[in-house]
Amino acid sequence: MDALSALELGELPAAFSKLPMFPVFDLGYYIVSVLYLKYEPGAVELSRRSPAVSWLCAMLYCFGSYILADILLGDSPIDYFSNNSHILLASAVWYLIFFCPMNLFYKCVSFLPAKLVFVAMKEVVRVRKIALGVHHAHHHYHHGWFIMVLTGWVKGSGVALMSNFEQLLRGVWKPETNEVLHMTFPTKASLYGAILFTLQQAHWLPVSKASLIFFFTMFMATSKIFLTATHSHASPLAPMEACLCPILFGASGQEDDHHGAAADGSHGPAPAQFVPQPAPKTKEELNEGTRKRKAKKAE
Amino acid sequence: MDALSALELGELPAAFSKLPMFPVFDLGYYIVSVLYLKYEPGAVELSRRSPAVSWLCAMLYCFGSYILADILLGDSPIDYFSNNSHILLASAVWYLIFFCPMNLFYKCVSFLPAKLVFVAMKEVVRVRKIALGVHHAHHHYHHGWFIMVLTGWVKGSGVALMSNFEQLLRGVWKPETNEVLHMTFPTKASLYGAILFTLQQAHWLPVSKASLIFFFTMFMATSKIFLTATHSHASPLAPMEACLCPILFGASGQEDDHHGAAADGSHGPAPAQFVPQPAPKTKEELNEGTRKRKAKKAE
Amino acid sequence: MDALSALELGELPAAFSKLPMFPVFDLGYYIVSVLYLKYEPGAVELSRRSPAVSWLCAMLYCFGSYILADILLGDSPIDYFSNNSHILLASAVWYLIFFCPMNLFYKCVSFLPAKLVFVAMKEVVRVRKIALGVHHAHHHYHHGWFIMVLTGWVKGSGVALMSNFEQLLRGVWKPETNEVLHMTFPTKASLYGAILFTLQQAHWLPVSKASLIFFFTMFMATSKIFLTATHSHASPLAPMEACLCPILFGASGQEDDHHGAAADGSHGPAPAQFVPQPAPKTKEELNEGTRKRKAKKAE
Repeated sequence: MDALSALELGELPAAFSKLPMFPVFDLGYYIVSVLYLKYEPGAVELSRRSPAVSWLCAMLYCFGSYILADILLGDSPIDYFSNNSHILLASAVWYLIFFCPMNLFYKCVSFLPAKLVFVAMKEVVRVRKIALGVHHAHHHYHHGWFIMVLTGWVKGSGVALMSNFEQLLRGVWKPETNEVLHMTFPTKASLYGAILFTLQQAHWLPVSKASLIFFFTMFMATSKIFLTATHSHASPLAPMEACLCPILFGASGQEDDHHGAAADGSHGPAPAQFVPQPAPKTKEELNEGTRKRKAKKAE
Repeated sequence: MDALSALELGELPAAFSKLPMFPVFDLGYYIVSVLYLKYEPGAVELSRRSPAVSWLCAMLYCFGSYILADILLGDSPIDYFSNNSHILLASAVWYLIFFCPMNLFYKCVSFLPAKLVFVAMKEVVRVRKIALGVHHAHHHYHHGWFIMVLTGWVKGSGVALMSNFEQLLRGVWKPETNEVLHMTFPTKASLYGAILFTLQQAHWLPVSKASLIFFFTMFMATSKIFLTATHSHASPLAPMEACLCPILFGASGQEDDHHGAAADGSHGPAPAQFVPQPAPKTKEELNEGTRKRKAKKAE
Repeated sequence: MDALSALELGELPAAFSKLPMFPVFDLGYYIVSVLYLKYEPGAVELSRRSPAVSWLCAMLYCFGSYILADILLGDSPIDYFSNNSHILLASAVWYLIFFCPMNLFYKCVSFLPAKLVFVAMKEVVRVRKIALGVHHAHHHYHHGWFIMVLTGWVKGSGVALMSNFEQLLRGVWKPETNEVLHMTFPTKASLYGAILFTLQQAHWLPVSKASLIFFFTMFMATSKIFLTATHSHASPLAPMEACLCPILFGASGQEDDHHGAAADGSHGPAPAQFVPQPAPKTKEELNEGTRKRKAKKAE
């Protein structure tokens, strides 16, 4: 009995890592992504006035990670668009979420228990993408550790890293912030995940890739389900960062901040260029909280 | 006699599709493109202060379609710049239109009858580019229908699709609008043309490519000559859209718009981000109308 | 004795052109580049709040020329990041300049005599990059003279040509100006250098590549050392331009400017879009002057 359970536990990650993503898990990914697009202010009106822009944005939300990774590796940015079935599935999700009679589809998929399932599925796809991104970059550059981390990161973060330009397509321009400047939890976790998968690829992390996929997926899915269910914005990574950052980047921090402030104060004409502001609530946080309420009202 | 005319009519598209574009038709394309650049507010002063920026913008106006298509297909964006004769011809047009003594060249080419000929020539080149773009994408991705449509579209629309960044080069930034959000007639027609050529390439449209090139060129040239001659902004495609859009994208349109407006109204702090504004007159429309009058005054 | 000195003078350029750049000269390049990043307003605070953005910006400052050249030639933009030792060296420089206890490293490298040496080393690397950029483009496009000039130019100018987007990463957006609109001396000299190296590559300039590298490096290093030491903003190229520009671009200049102004004046609603402003002091100029004083105060 014990041997059996140990065997099963040992085989679980291997079996999990062989699970195909298309179509079920990808469907969950597309649904959650297009939901987030619908939560954006003005997205519904935009879909009426300019269906072409709305469709393009939906494609960026669903396939942004492939576009960015292809750009980074010098391939055609729309290479993934040759997968007609994936594009058609995502387009169908976009059409149903925005144009379904009586808003039926939207009401179904944004029902909390259903949404939590889709959110978990999205994290399964996300971790698989990070692993594949690192693997893909390793195939191109056998010792390009930085390239592996960057590729895995953009594969995990997707449209978030190009949100400024995705918004520009919709006529919105917010240059004072971006996803790298104020990282949300999924972006930050994707970065750490990409570093872990790169260490694993370099054999500096004594763990099989299947296990790493399995345990990182568990961590991501649990965290995101918890955050979505509680409408919380607290990052599970905050304690670790609060511990590491002062050691790594705080050596001369206080001193320099003081000097910097003094210098800025004495520097008359230019300081309006870069006023440090309280970090605005970022996109996914707003998606979870305020806009969710607004969207519910719209139902 | 009847047989002869039928033969001629049958051979006309084939002969037309074999017509070389360089140098005559390309010259017309460059002239109309650089004319549109000169109509832009501030373009003349810019050419005096920063000839390098003015030349770069002229190159974007003349070769933007090649740059965008090369980016989409993952090639070098300046690949087309290896055609030295084309670049030199376009540079000569730019130099003559902006710096010719007494503005002679500009006065000649913007004389309405001459301009109508150039406008027609530009449409001939445009349709050929769409067909070649679809063909080129088909060569890379045999079943990538979406890639073919996108490539054909950017080959037809050219600089319009990157107008935000072309303006940025000149120090102008208008993030509240872009060519996809408010499509002009050439951009929209290029999209429909790209769809038609993709359907033809997929053998879903029972017509030869030569015939499609011929008839679509006729449609584009007639439309643009009419629009240019009458300074009109009405799109010949509007009736078709007014018929199709409510069916495709209006199912739950009214209902959702109402809900959306209510939600926006009750949502206090954020609505300034995306206020639906009356569609500003787009670039080519202004080119045809207001700026034309202004430019005439400048002559 | 005379023969010996002539021999030495003849062999000097050849020996100089074989000098390896890594690690000594590249180190100088990274130090000066990251110094310029630290001079940017808000850069120190940014490094405390978002070390990831600060590191990314430092990488753009150090490797922007490779990124831009790879984009132009259709390669992976992060191709150069496979050189782990170069990235690690640049990252170490970034870490020491921003986070060294007591700001020791910064104080050492920004000490004027030391800095002048680094500035000279940076120019050595810059000229080598221009030559390699032209050579690399020539390898891809044997007769693509325009591509050679553009590639050499971006290899010489580096991050300056993408400064708008580098600033955007830091949350700063200044669309009213860019490096092409108001070229600084290094950008302009890189353009002329790229033209010279292209002429040499095309055998239209009767001089060996080694000699051209040697003499252009001498010119660049002398000019930049002089500009840095005197905090001057005068371009050594200004007299040449003052002579050439009126001939090339001034034929109908006065006349057109007048007409343009009249047209703008009579054109009511739109002129706010492009108001010609007095050229703001550009980045490197401010780096040399104002910000240097500010940074000194911070020490």
